[in-house]
Amino acid sequence: MSSSFDPFQELVSFANQLADVSRVVVARYFRQDFSIDAKGDETPVTVADRETERALRSLIGQRFPDHGIYGEEFGEENAGSRFTWVLDPIDGTRSFITGTPTFGTLISLLEDGVPVLGVIDMPAMDERWVGSKEEGAFMNGVGCAVSRCEQIAGCRLVSTSPDMFSGIQLTGFKRLLGKTSFYRYGGDCYNYALLASGHVDLVVESDLQPYDFCALVPVVEAAGGVISDWQGQPLNMQSKGDVLASSSQALHQQAIRVLNQKL
Amino acid sequence: MSSSFDPFQELVSFANQLADVSRVVVARYFRQDFSIDAKGDETPVTVADRETERALRSLIGQRFPDHGIYGEEFGEENAGSRFTWVLDPIDGTRSFITGTPTFGTLISLLEDGVPVLGVIDMPAMDERWVGSKEEGAFMNGVGCAVSRCEQIAGCRLVSTSPDMFSGIQLTGFKRLLGKTSFYRYGGDCYNYALLASGHVDLVVESDLQPYDFCALVPVVEAAGGVISDWQGQPLNMQSKGDVLASSSQALHQQAIRVLNQKL
Repeated sequence: MSSSFDPFQELVSFANQLADVSRVVVARYFRQDFSIDAKGDETPVTVADRETERALRSLIGQRFPDHGIYGEEFGEENAGSRFTWVLDPIDGTRSFITGTPTFGTLISLLEDGVPVLGVIDMPAMDERWVGSKEEGAFMNGVGCAVSRCEQIAGCRLVSTSPDMFSGIQLTGFKRLLGKTSFYRYGGDCYNYALLASGHVDLVVESDLQPYDFCALVPVVEAAGGVISDWQGQPLNMQSKGDVLASSSQALHQQAIRVLNQKL
Repeated sequence: MSSSFDPFQELVSFANQLADVSRVVVARYFRQDFSIDAKGDETPVTVADRETERALRSLIGQRFPDHGIYGEEFGEENAGSRFTWVLDPIDGTRSFITGTPTFGTLISLLEDGVPVLGVIDMPAMDERWVGSKEEGAFMNGVGCAVSRCEQIAGCRLVSTSPDMFSGIQLTGFKRLLGKTSFYRYGGDCYNYALLASGHVDLVVESDLQPYDFCALVPVVEAAGGVISDWQGQPLNMQSKGDVLASSSQALHQQAIRVLNQKL
């Protein structure tokens, strides 16, 4: 029992409080009738999405009025702050709308543009991953770690949908499927959480937004994994949304080679 | 409280006992390290799969020694019996192997080759659907029903993977995706359970085996849905494995037309 004040621990605790609140809001709508809107990009957006983000923004505004906020539904507040909360109330809206529990709430904190704290909360499954360099990676409070698989042949590759790839990216993805020989589709943010707990070795996705991937970075890294864009560059608010996560540096480098191989 | 003996209720009760047992066996292996075999068709098969089927076969043999059994792992026993139990211990082995809770155990009873009782049990999510013409459809003991969606435009279509289709089937599937505009991948047997509870309107799959689809039929039908092959023919042990399930007869007929449309 330390009496010293730990400002980072306070942020972790607050992030958990945010996830506690989002669970309550999200639970009110899961598997209930609700209206389905359609955005220009055809992603279904639910009332739950908007209501959850409003609740989180309000809590952040009260507790840390000078922090920035960037969310899927309502854009940016306090741009240029040292700390910014990046929020995706419901990642995996297609799962949510089809009553499938594999949707999640993503909460991350960026310091000077770098994701330093991530929460992947799975409201319908009572599972929560929290990760940071300072404290490590935890699933429901218990430390978790990647598989450390280093071989591309036979590794467990997952991806939400092959339809997120086109052109040269689709060619690279298919080349990778040929090398791994094992894959499944579906999952959204859950795929990265499963990697952080050692159940998946490789996640390959594309066309993600910052609110989709910022929370994943500290969780995967704190669990011993590697996450970057398809060229091996760190993910940040400027990344264009190709995401590769691996259970080891060796596997990551092999995957980058296969994805970008010139024919 | 009726004192009359109901032989069908006895079968339903026994099917639930089988699912209670399979849950215990399956839970011992989910998210644990285990060896991964590869069959000729590249489906991963786990120790859990075999051990669960052995346990179920033993219980059936004790209770109904004259009943037939057909299972994924150990083939057929007592061929030609009036009643046959069709078993798939772990449907969705790719989900199981990647620590994803959306795998299920399928238990069905066929009478003279017709599926009359189905159990879709989701061990890692504590969800169980049981269906029969005699008793109706239930999820965790509570009656469930399909959405009765009748319009193909905007309906919720799900399918485990686009890679189960090829050639003219892939063309038909893509034509259908174009009409619905909403879909997600993943799910295996869970997709049909979600349809029976009204969260999904259309499931389109191919290349399934009898142990993959026999249990689905009574659940979907008792919930008010329609299930058949892609030509509208009833599913039985001789079906070649194309499966279409819909929340209404109107939607089913539209989907059959779109899937088989001649260009």
